[in-house]
Amino acid sequence: MKPLKVALLGCGVVGSQVIRLMHEQAGDLAARIGAPLELAGVAVRRLGRKRDIEVDPALLTTDAEALVTRDDVDIVIEVIGGIEPARSLIVAALSKGKSVVTANKALLAEDGATLHEAARTGNGDLYFEASVAGAIPLLRPLRESLAGDHVKRVLGIVNGTTNYILDKMDSTGASFTDALEEAQTLGYAEADPTADIEGFDAAAKAAIVAGLAFHSRVTAAEVHREGITDITATDVASAKAMGYVIKLLAICARSDDGRSFGVRVHPAMIPRSHPLAGVREAYNAVFVEAESAGQLMFYGKGAGGAPTASAVLGDLVAVARNRLAGTRGSEESTYADLSAHPMGETVTRCHVALDVADKPGVLARVADLFAQHDVSIQTVRQEGHGDDAQLVIVTHRATDAALSATMDGLRDLDIVRAIASVMRVEGDD
Amino acid sequence: MKPLKVALLGCGVVGSQVIRLMHEQAGDLAARIGAPLELAGVAVRRLGRKRDIEVDPALLTTDAEALVTRDDVDIVIEVIGGIEPARSLIVAALSKGKSVVTANKALLAEDGATLHEAARTGNGDLYFEASVAGAIPLLRPLRESLAGDHVKRVLGIVNGTTNYILDKMDSTGASFTDALEEAQTLGYAEADPTADIEGFDAAAKAAIVAGLAFHSRVTAAEVHREGITDITATDVASAKAMGYVIKLLAICARSDDGRSFGVRVHPAMIPRSHPLAGVREAYNAVFVEAESAGQLMFYGKGAGGAPTASAVLGDLVAVARNRLAGTRGSEESTYADLSAHPMGETVTRCHVALDVADKPGVLARVADLFAQHDVSIQTVRQEGHGDDAQLVIVTHRATDAALSATMDGLRDLDIVRAIASVMRVEGDD
Repeated sequence: MKPLKVALLGCGVVGSQVIRLMHEQAGDLAARIGAPLELAGVAVRRLGRKRDIEVDPALLTTDAEALVTRDDVDIVIEVIGGIEPARSLIVAALSKGKSVVTANKALLAEDGATLHEAARTGNGDLYFEASVAGAIPLLRPLRESLAGDHVKRVLGIVNGTTNYILDKMDSTGASFTDALEEAQTLGYAEADPTADIEGFDAAAKAAIVAGLAFHSRVTAAEVHREGITDITATDVASAKAMGYVIKLLAICARSDDGRSFGVRVHPAMIPRSHPLAGVREAYNAVFVEAESAGQLMFYGKGAGGAPTASAVLGDLVAVARNRLAGTRGSEESTYADLSAHPMGETVTRCHVALDVADKPGVLARVADLFAQHDVSIQTVRQEGHGDDAQLVIVTHRATDAALSATMDGLRDLDIVRAIASVMRVEGDD
Repeated sequence: MKPLKVALLGCGVVGSQVIRLMHEQAGDLAARIGAPLELAGVAVRRLGRKRDIEVDPALLTTDAEALVTRDDVDIVIEVIGGIEPARSLIVAALSKGKSVVTANKALLAEDGATLHEAARTGNGDLYFEASVAGAIPLLRPLRESLAGDHVKRVLGIVNGTTNYILDKMDSTGASFTDALEEAQTLGYAEADPTADIEGFDAAAKAAIVAGLAFHSRVTAAEVHREGITDITATDVASAKAMGYVIKLLAICARSDDGRSFGVRVHPAMIPRSHPLAGVREAYNAVFVEAESAGQLMFYGKGAGGAPTASAVLGDLVAVARNRLAGTRGSEESTYADLSAHPMGETVTRCHVALDVADKPGVLARVADLFAQHDVSIQTVRQEGHGDDAQLVIVTHRATDAALSATMDGLRDLDIVRAIASVMRVEGDD
């Protein structure tokens, strides 16, 4: 049987694991595909660099474009990341009729349409399971297993760095800065942690997931994004006291009328009894609610060389099989053509802790302000007394706009000394 | 676009949900498939019976064989269960070139080979996601997402009835009989609960999962099976005291040399910190360990009309797409051709509580017996004293044969009054 030739773009943490697995599992892969795979070339930035894995020097090239358009190449694996040159290379490969497997969440979330269009034109496959939640099979289940169901909501912990930091803050009482430093020391966070802690990484993943879940086109720019840099040890302790834990969540949810959806990334309190609450350290987990399937959860390692390579290899087997069968996998599904609504229209709940003046009638005035904004209070608890008095309020569901207006109103109330903590609450409705 | 015609076998709890979803989601399904679906007929045992859903009487028929072989039928959904007539009907449909979606675990585990052979001959698809763990996408991830990985072990709670019973026993201290009765009252257990509580249902699922995980052919007869009827409130309390919880597990694991695998269903103690320990009530969850992906978990509803129908519909969309594209999905993969080894060769650990005589040297004699069988003790705790003295022992890993021989030896020791509790321990290695 003629081998299928694979070009690899990138030979870093993931790329070197892809090479290792293609080598170690060659026999199994050939049996599962129906033909052997052959590494046709590996595009790298510099030839001389020391790598995690030994690669036949004859395979290495710095001319990625020549490699991906070579006539004998059947499949291109892209694990260099970033927008350019990844986009041009993937488009060049797809346009020449190659199939592409990519882990590039940033590119898919910024300009997936261009890639999908190129795949259609070239009649090849574009697979990208590794782009979200590493080794956890999530995109294929969303795209295929739930193809006969109606996904209502996806709630996920899709960034391991921030989960590690928040988990440390929760379990040890550490400050954000200390927890971040520990994560950096242990290699869970990068020297420049912006993409993780500001939620950019999670937002790109949320856009990809929302697109699949709602059969629409979604870009990262449409994702409401808040990072975790403002989370304090006090916020974490306050959540803990209420039986909650703070997680950075990526949330995609249909509106009640089903005509739009919200897609957002922000820290939120979830009840400790929620399946996502138990997700520790750098693990990822995604909770899916579908009309018929009910509640599903997918859990595993969301990053790292070998787990990501596992997802890449699963896609590689699929596109290789498709190629042999002369067919294509399911292409982009955007028929529903729904749009993301603004964050203000998103329905959520809110926890707020207020340092209040020690005067009679404080609760009445605060409650009145909530009522003015049509925000209904679920629970209110008064803690401390005198100058230390604090009101801890959890609201019922309301639009984010109404909740924001309420917070602004509270800041202006003379009896409110400070808003000690404010956080959205998810996962208990 | 010409509709694809679907024949449905069975109109019970699952079948009626399939009809509802095909109707309610008709537009979405057509958009996802690229052509509308049309219900060609519904085979039932009796025409006059009252059903959960209203079905056009013109569609109902008692002649299932005529329905599945009708020239205009493209796809057959089988949700009648059991071996016959399901097998003959599926084979008849596949032989005529139809594609089949089935939820029939018992049939797949008893005689999957015949079905797969018929699918090959007829060049149609045989999909069966709904046969294991209901709505939880498990088979597709095993078959496709992990196609580039090496699955080492699958540890699953795949029977909701027994999980409900064991969870009640754990949370309330109830006896097995009382918990079973409650499960029956609430509809979680059938009037004749044998298939569930004796592990037959889980064993069929274990056979299907092992076949996919290890690319080999596995039947239910090869699954070592023990039910939960002998679990006592004392066993549960004893596990609890040690920080464990008892679950009925389906376990498929490669041998250390990779040349065979074990597949078994039995109750086992797992640490409360294990992700499977938190699976409550009738939920299912499956824990997968793969070489590169690491630890993954899939969680959700393992049974019920709507969840099972969701899995059936997902398969329906896939086979319908394949049909339109003139292709087939991945077929049975048995190239590895590994065999299940006997239970005695399975490596596991054991917890045993012994009522012992109040004599000096008891521990030494017990320890000596373990040593004779080459079973190494991990922890031993002496509880009570005098006539109430109990030794609680947890072993290191050993073959099941050695552990069984040790238990037999303990029974014969004069200083052992009784074996109060004995249970395998899983999930903490």
